[in-house]
Order: sequence, then structure tokens, then C-alpha cells
Amino acid sequence: MKAIIIGFGFIGKRLIEVLNQKISLLKRIDRSFKVIGVSDSRGYIFNPDGLDLKVLSKISGTHEYSRYFHEGSSLDLIEEGDADIMVEATPTNIKDGEPGLTYIRRALSIGMDVVTANKGPLVVAFRELKRLAESRGCHLRFEGAVAGAMPIFSLINECLQGDKIIKISGILNGTTNFILSKMHFEGSTFEMALKEAQERGITEKDPSYDVDGIDAACKVVILANALMDRDVRFEDVERVGIRGISPEAINLAKRANYTIKLIGVIDRNLEVAPKLVPLNHPLCVHGTLNALHIETDLAKELTIIGYGAGKETVSAIMNDIISVMKGRLAGQSSLTQS
Amino acid sequence: MKAIIIGFGFIGKRLIEVLNQKISLLKRIDRSFKVIGVSDSRGYIFNPDGLDLKVLSKISGTHEYSRYFHEGSSLDLIEEGDADIMVEATPTNIKDGEPGLTYIRRALSIGMDVVTANKGPLVVAFRELKRLAESRGCHLRFEGAVAGAMPIFSLINECLQGDKIIKISGILNGTTNFILSKMHFEGSTFEMALKEAQERGITEKDPSYDVDGIDAACKVVILANALMDRDVRFEDVERVGIRGISPEAINLAKRANYTIKLIGVIDRNLEVAPKLVPLNHPLCVHGTLNALHIETDLAKELTIIGYGAGKETVSAIMNDIISVMKGRLAGQSSLTQS
Repeated sequence: MKAIIIGFGFIGKRLIEVLNQKISLLKRIDRSFKVIGVSDSRGYIFNPDGLDLKVLSKISGTHEYSRYFHEGSSLDLIEEGDADIMVEATPTNIKDGEPGLTYIRRALSIGMDVVTANKGPLVVAFRELKRLAESRGCHLRFEGAVAGAMPIFSLINECLQGDKIIKISGILNGTTNFILSKMHFEGSTFEMALKEAQERGITEKDPSYDVDGIDAACKVVILANALMDRDVRFEDVERVGIRGISPEAINLAKRANYTIKLIGVIDRNLEVAPKLVPLNHPLCVHGTLNALHIETDLAKELTIIGYGAGKETVSAIMNDIISVMKGRLAGQSSLTQS
Repeated sequence: MKAIIIGFGFIGKRLIEVLNQKISLLKRIDRSFKVIGVSDSRGYIFNPDGLDLKVLSKISGTHEYSRYFHEGSSLDLIEEGDADIMVEATPTNIKDGEPGLTYIRRALSIGMDVVTANKGPLVVAFRELKRLAESRGCHLRFEGAVAGAMPIFSLINECLQGDKIIKISGILNGTTNFILSKMHFEGSTFEMALKEAQERGITEKDPSYDVDGIDAACKVVILANALMDRDVRFEDVERVGIRGISPEAINLAKRANYTIKLIGVIDRNLEVAPKLVPLNHPLCVHGTLNALHIETDLAKELTIIGYGAGKETVSAIMNDIISVMKGRLAGQSSLTQS
């Protein structure tokens, strides 16, 4: 299997490190596995015989791998590369999904399997991309796009195949969980806790994305469309952020053995809002952890807790890549993740 | 796919109810799916054209379905039935694994796929059964055998395929968690809490099985052998139960923002023992819930929480059955769960 990686930022670089480290695991599944191309904003590197992952994992931009460097766009690499799978790891843009959306459309339309960790294209065009993948007989997987390293799509699609999903709810944004945990345990004000989150580099440049629930709402949209067979958009999510949460409110909750968490809910309604959560509830986790509570007809309740962002996300991307490899080998008939 | 069900107790009956309820889901995967035989201690019912699941879900013993009833043993059904898959749901026996062990051996040796929710055979003969399944090209799945509805084997095998598992630890027995939760929240003594658990019917007949950590140790053995490539036996688990936990000990823990839980640990050592767990740790769940904390190289930490026993276990059995159906259809090469 020949892979190309579009995007050579934090996630792309970490992925290459891990691919290098785990190459024998991958080769045991498919001896022909190789990375033939990587692109970033400067251009792309391409070698149809496979790039050296050790070299790749030591450079910080494509131009540094001068032997195979080409000035050109990611689209050039997608179209000329003749790869089997594209891993798309460009920056998230929830307005129009670009540039990832164009790359995913192009890759699927020429029959390439796609793994993405990018919410943008999925928030904007989930249904379109799913149909495109189905019509081309391609895999489209996106475990890393929601809740980072927490395997929510594969958990439901591979581990709960007999269950009907009734409701999904939980903490879908680590930054707001960090802020609310600070307020709960240290009595900080919202402003103080936000400042600490910014100093630690765990907020987006525009804090509104986290604290106004925009990021969590994007995840609600993707979960609803991918797991509950809905066809909803960002505008369909009722959304309240955490700017209005005062130390007094947290204190009142605490005295009654509750705390306040920003919770995303997917059932008939779609919602992101601060909610009272009992301190003893499985969802009540702190710091930057994410947590999802899944209600089903058979298993009744399952909760999964993990890291929703950061380099741990590569766990989800690796699982998607391996699933695609195995799926190609088995010639599976069920191709998309949802 | 033709299925037989060995054992028509609590789990067997609940499974048949669910198969009846979800028959259209199963037929969408494999139009030929049918249950052709069910056995219990009185005999078995068998119809090569398929039994009526509606009728089956209303009877309480095989003899009540007189049209297809045969006096004979489960082994007779396994050998004469010509089924593709056997679901084994006989009572657990951790001493010698019988009668389930004989049934599983026989089914695998004649090329039948096996799904079991029975710890006994796996504790006694995991390695043997795994090798037998591999040598016969059969699926052997056992998601329901450990932590009931919590999908631990499929979670690790399908959702964390790129991760190396470093350590697994957690609450593997709902009865002891119920007792310790009572002691924590209500200040009960061990004896009072045990009595309440017995009155509610959530202990085994012999409470030693739960409170001395025997049940949890069996699960540690299966997790170690199935997920960490070990070859260990029950005797290899260091085991301390919860009889010695006093209200004073719980109180001391509580004052320091901890509680005491009976924790199973699988890393280099295998252990079941009461441990201090911080009240804010994801593993710190109460009541009859089970919880497993998985440490890996990529995802770092994942916790999964759910019901470890009871009718919810059928979620795990259904997932195993569907995985076997899809695996047969795809002719997958990777056949056993571990």
C-alpha cells in the first residue's frame, strides 16, 4: 500500500515519527506498505519507490528533503502520486473546510482511501464525502477528527455492532474542561483559568473556539451525522459556552456534590451547554481529559475517557490506517466508517 | 450462517430474545442466518431449517418446544447439527472449565466458529483453545467472558491496532465495587454491605468468589493471555480480597480524597488487591460498574466504564456473533481475537 501524507505540521510530523517507529508492525500487515509522498505549504516530496521514514522524521519541512523535493501543491501530489491512501492532516477550518475538503474530494474521486484527523471537511460536507466514498468504493475514516485518541467511531462501529445507539453525551473539549476543573478545584475565576490555559498553550489562538463551545459543537455535528444517521449542520446545534460560569455557581454545585462541565449532547436534539454533573458520575473527569457517555439498548451505558487532542491523536490515525490496510487486503464490502 | 446455542439459562434466554428482536439486522449482514439448535441439561431442540425465534423466546426449557425436542446431550447437538457457529453459554466453572471446555474443544475441532461468554474454559485452557482455533481456521471470540458488556478485547484489537499495550488495570468485579461503594458512601461495615449485596442477588452463591478476588483474578488471567501475549494461570495472580477492609480504612482514605477499590492489574506482575484510588481518577466509579484503565504507547491512557455482568453482556455476545458473520463473509485471514 502506497501512502501520501498531506500536511506536515504537528500531527503530520508526529505521524511520520510513529510510522517510522512501527514500520515492522505495518509491514507484517502489508509488506508493500510505504510512504511515497508528503506535502506542506512549500511543496511536496515524492518518490514512487518510497521515502526514507528515518530521514523524514528528522526534517521540519519538505524542502529539507531536497533529493525528492518538488515545488508544487498538495493537489499535484494527490493527482500525480498514484497512492492508495491519503492521510490528510492540514489545519482545521470549520468555515468552508478548506484546504482539506478539496484534497479529500479529489482523493476520493480518483479512488484513493482517505484517513483524516481534520474536523473542518466533515463539519461542512459529511454527507457529500460519505456518498462520494461509497460511490467510489473507498474507505473514509476520521477517528482522529473527534476526541483525538478516544476511539469513538471504531468503538461504536466495531465493538457495539448489535447495539442501537440512543444517546451520546459528554465532554468534547479539553480546554474548557481544564478551565472548569481549575475553577472547581482551585476556586479560580473564569478569566484566571482561561489565562492559565492560554499560558500553557492549550487554547486555540481565538479562545472563542473553545470557550463558546464552537469546537464541541463541530464534534456534535460529526458524531450525529456519522453515528446517528443524521444530516445536520453546525447551525442545528443549540450552543451556550462557559463565559458566564462564575466561581459562585461552581461552589453551589460543589456543595451539592456536583460540578459544572461543558457537555455536548446528541439525541433528538443537538446541544452544547454547561451542565451540572454529579461528582460520582463516570463522565465527571477533570483536567484536559475528554469523556463520552454512550447509551444503547443492549449495553445500556458505556463511558470512554481519554485525551481529546495533542500527539495522542496519532493513535487514532494509526488505527484508521491499519483498518484501511486490512480492509483492502480482505476486500471488505462495508467500506465507510458510518 | 447456521448457529447453535449451548446453554439456555439467563444469558442463553436473553440472547434468544435479542436475536429475535434484531433478526432483520442479522439478515442484512447474512440473509442465511438462522438458529438451528439450542440445548440445555434436559436435551436439545434441533431443526436444520431454523427454529422459530419467537417461539424460542417464549419458552423456559428446551422440552417445551416439543416438535423439535430430542433427548440427548449438547455434544450430540454440536456433532450432528452441522452448524457454522456455536454460542456457548453454560455455567462458569473455573476449576476445570467444564462442561464448556469440552463443548468448545469439540466445536473448534470440527471447524465451527465459537463465541463464548464463559470464563471457565478460557481460564483453564486459553492457549490450547487459541491454538486449536488457529489450526482449524476458526474464529474464537469471548468478549462477554470478561467485564460483561464492556468491550475490552474488541476495543484493543479493533480500535487500538497501532498501540502497544503497556498496562491494564481496573475494577473487574461489580459485586466488590457495590460493597466498597456502600462502605464509602454509607459508612457500612463489610458484613452489612455484603449482606445487602446478597439480598439484592448480586453475589455468587459462594461470596468468596467475589470478595476474595477469585472472579477478578480469573479475568486478569484471561486479559493477560489474550491481550498481552502471556501464558499465565490462575495461580500466577497475587490475590488479596476485601474482607479485611474496615470502615476506618475507608474513612481514612476518604479524608485524603481517596477511596478503596479492588483493583486487578496486568503488567509484568499480575495482581488483584485493594488499592487506594483518588476520587477524581477516571477509574473511581461506584455501584456495580466495572472500569478498565488501559495504558499504551500512543493513546497514553484510555478508560472504559460499563456493566460487567447481567443481561447487558448480550451486547458483547451480539458483537462477537456479528464480527464472526462479517469475518466469514470477508474470508478474513486474521481469525482469532488475540
